[in-house]
Amino acid sequence: MADEVKLHGLAGSPFVCRVKIALKVKDIKYDFVVEDLINKSADLVKYNPVYKKVPVLVHNGNPISESLVIVEYIDDVWKGVSILPHDAYEKARVRFWAKVVDDKCLPALFKAIGSHAQEQAVAEAHEQLQFLENELKVKGSKFFGGDSINLVDISATFIAYWVGAAEEALRITLVTKDKFPKLKEWSDNYINCQAVKDVLPPREVLVGFFKSRFGKA
Amino acid sequence: MADEVKLHGLAGSPFVCRVKIALKVKDIKYDFVVEDLINKSADLVKYNPVYKKVPVLVHNGNPISESLVIVEYIDDVWKGVSILPHDAYEKARVRFWAKVVDDKCLPALFKAIGSHAQEQAVAEAHEQLQFLENELKVKGSKFFGGDSINLVDISATFIAYWVGAAEEALRITLVTKDKFPKLKEWSDNYINCQAVKDVLPPREVLVGFFKSRFGKA
Repeated sequence: MADEVKLHGLAGSPFVCRVKIALKVKDIKYDFVVEDLINKSADLVKYNPVYKKVPVLVHNGNPISESLVIVEYIDDVWKGVSILPHDAYEKARVRFWAKVVDDKCLPALFKAIGSHAQEQAVAEAHEQLQFLENELKVKGSKFFGGDSINLVDISATFIAYWVGAAEEALRITLVTKDKFPKLKEWSDNYINCQAVKDVLPPREVLVGFFKSRFGKA
Repeated sequence: MADEVKLHGLAGSPFVCRVKIALKVKDIKYDFVVEDLINKSADLVKYNPVYKKVPVLVHNGNPISESLVIVEYIDDVWKGVSILPHDAYEKARVRFWAKVVDDKCLPALFKAIGSHAQEQAVAEAHEQLQFLENELKVKGSKFFGGDSINLVDISATFIAYWVGAAEEALRITLVTKDKFPKLKEWSDNYINCQAVKDVLPPREVLVGFFKSRFGKA
């Protein structure tokens, strides 16, 4: 029996996009089920009663929630290109950095965007992004994963692509080449990576979203 | 060469205790390095520059931070009793529930304790704990891990042991047998599990901590 793979999601969500990228890396075919977060479907609430959020991956009837948990699951189940390294210490480092992105970098960036780049909020976001900049400098590689992308790159999809759209929509500056040369170089490499480029939503959709959500009247 | 294992921590930290339990389950000998969080050691800041927090495990000179990342690392490196299941779907479920404990249950409990069991805060904590209660009911097993403990049980150490100490110290009620029969039964089973019992800090130390930190003058 062929695998039945469904991804419940939304076109513009960076968290859903993480899962799309992982599925693309592994070359997995799936059905995309569009969810409406205002009127959540009975399936979404059944599959993810705790968070009631997308993405939810349903594999042969088994639901899995939380984007990084899903990406690790995809890497566990489908062989081929690896998303996490095999070495235990490298794997722990990767999990650590993906957690830093979720715990520290994204909340700081959300706040900086929501505040229209208020000075203090931008300073806090820069403080967190500096850790990623340093990590890229130490590694000296194209991606956080080395020559190819791994869980850390995938976790940071928002930074590579969504932040630029927010800057354009709100006419603000958050991440400059001057302050974050490695992170900007990484962003360019990452969004031009085939598996990523193939699934990113059109930039104008994101610009439109940020304008309507955070734009000044 | 024998493994050199050092755990940087604090006696009363539930997050450090997670790592101690994992090391005990695997029967790993290690040196415990006591950290002072007021005057953080140069080693702690060097090993964990992002969070500057305990626990940090240093294995043959390689530092790993964040308690759940460390526990997965311990399970990856040392064979013997497994802390995560081998089946990919079961593993994803376990990672999901450990994340629910960290994202939802613990912050709600910290708030309920910090507010001296203010009604709304307790209601919010109950809402989150109800998910764990339901999960135990559905599983119908002694532990979240079935017959033996796994990552979910270890993640919920605070709920099993620290919450009771907080209730005693502050003369509040957070988790009752009436409302959470499965969770109370699990707590009893868990803290009496040998690997857990062997490393839990004395209850009076925790009662003293909660009194000094949150007690009314």
